[in-house]
Amino acid sequence: MSDMMKAAVFVKPGEMAVKEMPKARLEADGDIVIRVVRTCVCGSDLWFFRGLSSQEPGGQTGHESIGVVEEAGPEVTSVKPGDFVVVPFPYSCGRCPVCKAGFESVCPHGGYFSACQAEYLRVPEADGTVVKVPGSPEDYDDATLASLLTISDVMSTGYHAAVSAEVKPGDTAVVMGDGAVGLCGVIAAKMRGATRIIAMSRHEDRAALAREFGATDIVPERGQAAIDKVLEMTGGYGADAVLECVGSKQSFDTAIGLIRRGGVIGRVGLPHDVEVSAEGTFYANVGIKGGPAPVRHYGLDDGLLDAVLKGEINPGRVFTGEYDLDHIQDAYEAMDRRKVIKALIRF
Amino acid sequence: MSDMMKAAVFVKPGEMAVKEMPKARLEADGDIVIRVVRTCVCGSDLWFFRGLSSQEPGGQTGHESIGVVEEAGPEVTSVKPGDFVVVPFPYSCGRCPVCKAGFESVCPHGGYFSACQAEYLRVPEADGTVVKVPGSPEDYDDATLASLLTISDVMSTGYHAAVSAEVKPGDTAVVMGDGAVGLCGVIAAKMRGATRIIAMSRHEDRAALAREFGATDIVPERGQAAIDKVLEMTGGYGADAVLECVGSKQSFDTAIGLIRRGGVIGRVGLPHDVEVSAEGTFYANVGIKGGPAPVRHYGLDDGLLDAVLKGEINPGRVFTGEYDLDHIQDAYEAMDRRKVIKALIRF
Repeated sequence: MSDMMKAAVFVKPGEMAVKEMPKARLEADGDIVIRVVRTCVCGSDLWFFRGLSSQEPGGQTGHESIGVVEEAGPEVTSVKPGDFVVVPFPYSCGRCPVCKAGFESVCPHGGYFSACQAEYLRVPEADGTVVKVPGSPEDYDDATLASLLTISDVMSTGYHAAVSAEVKPGDTAVVMGDGAVGLCGVIAAKMRGATRIIAMSRHEDRAALAREFGATDIVPERGQAAIDKVLEMTGGYGADAVLECVGSKQSFDTAIGLIRRGGVIGRVGLPHDVEVSAEGTFYANVGIKGGPAPVRHYGLDDGLLDAVLKGEINPGRVFTGEYDLDHIQDAYEAMDRRKVIKALIRF
Repeated sequence: MSDMMKAAVFVKPGEMAVKEMPKARLEADGDIVIRVVRTCVCGSDLWFFRGLSSQEPGGQTGHESIGVVEEAGPEVTSVKPGDFVVVPFPYSCGRCPVCKAGFESVCPHGGYFSACQAEYLRVPEADGTVVKVPGSPEDYDDATLASLLTISDVMSTGYHAAVSAEVKPGDTAVVMGDGAVGLCGVIAAKMRGATRIIAMSRHEDRAALAREFGATDIVPERGQAAIDKVLEMTGGYGADAVLECVGSKQSFDTAIGLIRRGGVIGRVGLPHDVEVSAEGTFYANVGIKGGPAPVRHYGLDDGLLDAVLKGEINPGRVFTGEYDLDHIQDAYEAMDRRKVIKALIRF
């Protein structure tokens, strides 16, 4: 067996490449190495691709993957070679008070993956990290594999927005952002019982998918016009819950403007230059919760894995373009130019 | 019956007076007028007394009261003359989506009382506002009346901090602030099952009462020293929940520093110059919730009234000084100089 593998690397803004790299290998007793079956490109990958955030030239990329366990360290007890797993974008110890409270995505002993766009991946703290899937990849069709892949990030992240926003049965929920996370947020709002789901979208392909996922209304407006529209739709009171899946200052300010008093903004968009007025939110009793999504917890305990396996949800529909690893540049470009909602990489 | 009443008025910073004023009367069909049985001075009243916030000279003051219904407008159905009521510091319609969601303290059709330190008080929207108490004031001893009075604000506000902070059984909760609200926050954290309650206090009388209310630990340090202390006490992970009952920038920054990742800061201190870093809290999955306390909801549905009537909680212990209305100046001064924790006014 070769000790080399193919991996995507960042060259410079706008340019990705595929290189031969040393194959991922066990480094600690709790590690596993997986053979990656599917990976993808995330909206957050576009930050470095567009030169808006720093990234080491020559370094590997990607934080979303599903795969088959190739090797397992001697301390690993929950999976063995041949097992099929979803690898959450964060890794986590699974034992500390933060993990036990259900926030393993911010485990102080963990971290984030950044080498999933490759043939093989080392997974530290495997017992506290992976979501085991029954059977093997060959048992599932492409659509199910795509949906399983979304659990590693975007479906769990959309779900975290809904949980953080405290969406309850009967609620009117607004989803800000029509990227893959926002679209998965629509699925999540519906799963948690929202009866009116207002998706903010001005792109017809995305709005159509939002409707398919359960959105009852599409609002293309932005800023004050969007606020006015939602207030008009809710008798002037605002939405019971807001899923903020963008992270920009404008999006956040809009969320504040259209949330009902006493409501909670569930935020999962990586914040960029966002400041929160403590006074304005205080006198409206508006809460703000959210952050990186605790994928493992949602996959296992909150039933995202079950919902995908039973076909109750089909978040894999967000992949509207498919590439092999050698065409990673095309995958990034298609995302960057909004030619696809999300780009899948298959091996 | 005289159509005049005695009422406290603000003269200028540092000076209160008692004046004869036109007696409170019905102004709308949903109003009631109550004869005030107990009122008190709030820590937030000290803002104008100290000249730190603006207040109209000659205007009435006070937002906490219990009393007996003297008159009721023709639309009022829930209480009648002779009934004993707690009057929450906010009034609310009780019918709109904000009220129905349990946030009547920020009802867009409501407002806040500012004339409770008087013999009589007009209560608008009575059906959506008051908490009816069984029997009449004569049926209760002074200690129970004092505890009932705290439901109008400080006990409910401390409880809102605990609810907002999502205190759960087994939690380690930190209570910032050793004023009446913070002390009631200790009671609330215990009611909601916190097993370790760390009260931040550097005043021996307040620390003693915090212990009596259920605090297991007292931390006198502030700022970074307080953060270090709580991290040391929690194995480096921080507290599961923080009840922020101060509202200053220092207190809020300390709360951020000592909350466990994934925890929620329940804030009820009126914010002064507080800004929240959206990024820092995001990457720790820290939530921020809170605002003015929904008193009526907590009194009736969450059982604060029952807990007081059954003697399960004794929040009236925060009143360590008692005055009649004619000595309102003494009551304010005693609060201002920290000679008393909270000043009760009886009639």
